[in-house]
Amino acid sequence: MEFDLINRIAAQARTRNDVALGIGDDAALLRVPSNRELVACCDTLNVGVHFPHDAQASDIGWKALAVNLSDLAAMGATPAWALLSLTLPEPDAAFVDGLVEGFMQLARKADVALVGGDTTRGPLAVSVTALGFVEPGRALRRDGAKLGDAVFVSGMLGDAAAGLRLWCSGVRDPAARVLFARLHHPVPRSALGMQLASVANAAIDISDGLLADLGHIAERSSVGIELDVAAVPTSAALIAHFDEAARRTMQLAGGDDYELAFTVPPAHIGELRAIADELQVPLTRIGEVVAGSGVRVRDADGRWLESSISGWDHFGKSST
Amino acid sequence: MEFDLINRIAAQARTRNDVALGIGDDAALLRVPSNRELVACCDTLNVGVHFPHDAQASDIGWKALAVNLSDLAAMGATPAWALLSLTLPEPDAAFVDGLVEGFMQLARKADVALVGGDTTRGPLAVSVTALGFVEPGRALRRDGAKLGDAVFVSGMLGDAAAGLRLWCSGVRDPAARVLFARLHHPVPRSALGMQLASVANAAIDISDGLLADLGHIAERSSVGIELDVAAVPTSAALIAHFDEAARRTMQLAGGDDYELAFTVPPAHIGELRAIADELQVPLTRIGEVVAGSGVRVRDADGRWLESSISGWDHFGKSST
Repeated sequence: MEFDLINRIAAQARTRNDVALGIGDDAALLRVPSNRELVACCDTLNVGVHFPHDAQASDIGWKALAVNLSDLAAMGATPAWALLSLTLPEPDAAFVDGLVEGFMQLARKADVALVGGDTTRGPLAVSVTALGFVEPGRALRRDGAKLGDAVFVSGMLGDAAAGLRLWCSGVRDPAARVLFARLHHPVPRSALGMQLASVANAAIDISDGLLADLGHIAERSSVGIELDVAAVPTSAALIAHFDEAARRTMQLAGGDDYELAFTVPPAHIGELRAIADELQVPLTRIGEVVAGSGVRVRDADGRWLESSISGWDHFGKSST
Repeated sequence: MEFDLINRIAAQARTRNDVALGIGDDAALLRVPSNRELVACCDTLNVGVHFPHDAQASDIGWKALAVNLSDLAAMGATPAWALLSLTLPEPDAAFVDGLVEGFMQLARKADVALVGGDTTRGPLAVSVTALGFVEPGRALRRDGAKLGDAVFVSGMLGDAAAGLRLWCSGVRDPAARVLFARLHHPVPRSALGMQLASVANAAIDISDGLLADLGHIAERSSVGIELDVAAVPTSAALIAHFDEAARRTMQLAGGDDYELAFTVPPAHIGELRAIADELQVPLTRIGEVVAGSGVRVRDADGRWLESSISGWDHFGKSST
C-alpha cells in the first residue's frame, strides 16, 4: 500500500529552492538559512475527535496543515516545509488525492514544500510536522508577557465552536456556511504572526479556547490576565445562530478558532494598528496583563465571571 | 487531558545546547549549525499494525524513536532532535510514563533532545519526527548506486520477522528472546550510517524487507541488483527456530530489521572493513549492482529465485 500512495502524494507535492531532497528517500534534506533559528511543531488530527467522520477529505488535508501553520504563526515564524504522516483504514486513492489536494492548496498559499512523511494502515489520522524560520531571539513566546501589556486577539472568536455544534446536530443549513468554513477550513494567521514578531511581547494561537490558551501565557509569563467579555470580537454569523449565553461559552472556552492572542506593550499599539490596516485583519483589544496569576473575565457591568466545568457562567459577584 | 500529559512528558525530556526553546510553547526553537543541511523524517507506529496490542509501553516508545533514527542513519545523518505526537485512547499516566521512558532511553543513547509534539485522544498511535544534520552534499541517498558497487547489509536479517511470527503465535519462550528483542527493541545503526557517508554510494534502512528496500535503491538509481541468498547473514537464533524455507522468506521479505543496506564501490571496501572493525558491526557482502532494473536473487547453486506475493519461492531456473 505505502509505495503507491507515496507516489500519488509525491505527484501533487510542491518544492522550494531550499529543498535539497524531498519525498522519496529515507529523509528529506533541507537548507536552513544560516542566520535563522529553525521553528518546529507537530500536531495530529484524529477522526471523530478533531474532525467529524463525514468531513470532506480536502478539508481534512487543509486543516491538518493549517493547525500546524497556526503554531508557527504564533511563534512569529515564516513557514517553509512540512512532513505528512497519514494513517488510513484502507488504501483509498480518491480519498488520499482529495486530502492531499486540500493540504497542497494551503501549502501553495503559504509557500510550504511537502518534503516527506509516511503512510500507514490504521484508523484515520493525519499527523503533520511543520518547519519554519525566525530571526534568532525574535520568536514570539508564551513567556514574554509584561505587566501593563494590552491583550489582543485577531479575527472573530467562537465561530469554529459554533460550527462544530451545528454540524454535530446535523445542521447543514447554507446560512451557517461561514461557521462551517471556520471549523473545516481555518486560515492560519501566518502574515500577522510574522509582523507581530517585532511588536508583541507574547503570543499563542487559540486552539484549545481563549481562556485556556491565555492561561498558558499567564502561567509561563508569571502574570495575570484580565479580559472584558463584551470586547471579545463576535461575528454576525455567530450572533445570528446563538444567544448571548451560548456565544459566551463558545468564545471563551471553544477551541479551533486558530486566531492569535497576543500581548503588546502600550508603546507599540500604534504600530499594531498600522499592521492591522496593512493586512486588513481585525485586531481587537480584549484585556490587559496584570500582577497575579490566571485569567479573569469581567462582563459589561464590570462583574467578574467564574469558570465552571461546562464553560463560563455568570456568577453574579460585584467587581472589586 | 493534553496539558497534564505534556507536563509528564516534559518532566522526562532531555535537552541540548542547540535547543533555544523546547517543550511548552507553540513550537520549538532550534539552532542548526550553519555548515550543515537539516535531515528530517517522520514515521508513525499504530497499535496492531506496527506493534502488538500487548507490547510493553517502554518498547513502543523505544521503537517509535528507533525507526526514525534508522531513517536518519540511512541518510548518514547525525541525530539531534525529535518531536513526539502521541494518540491515546485514554489519559493513562502510567502508560505514558512507560512509553516516554523507553523513548528517552534511546534518546539519551543517541544524544537526541525531545523538543515538542502533542497528545491527542484516539486509537493508540505514536508519530515521531526526527531531525538531524549532515554535511551538505554528503548525505547517503537511494539514487547513488553505481554499476559495479558491492551490496552490503549490516547485522543479521530476518530476526524481527521471526520474532513477530512467534509473538503472534503466542510464543513467549525465553529461548526466543533474542528474536523478540529485535522486534520490540531495534537498535538504529546511527554510528554506522554516519561513517558510511564517506564510503557508500547509496543506502537505505531495511524496514519493509530486504528485497523491497533494495528495490527502491535499484529504481531510484536506475540499476539492477543481484543478491546471493546464501550470503544473507543469519543469526543462530533464527536458525534455531525456523527451517531454511521459512528463514528465506523472513530474510528477503520480512521487514522491521532496521539494518542498513548499502552499495559501496570496490575501491572503498578496505575502508569499509576498517569501519566494521572499529564499530564492531557485522557487515556482509550479499550482492552487486548490475545493469538493468529490479532485484534478482540466486541460490547457493546459482539458480535464480522468483518472487511471489507471499514471499520468495524457489523457481528452479538455471542461472544464465
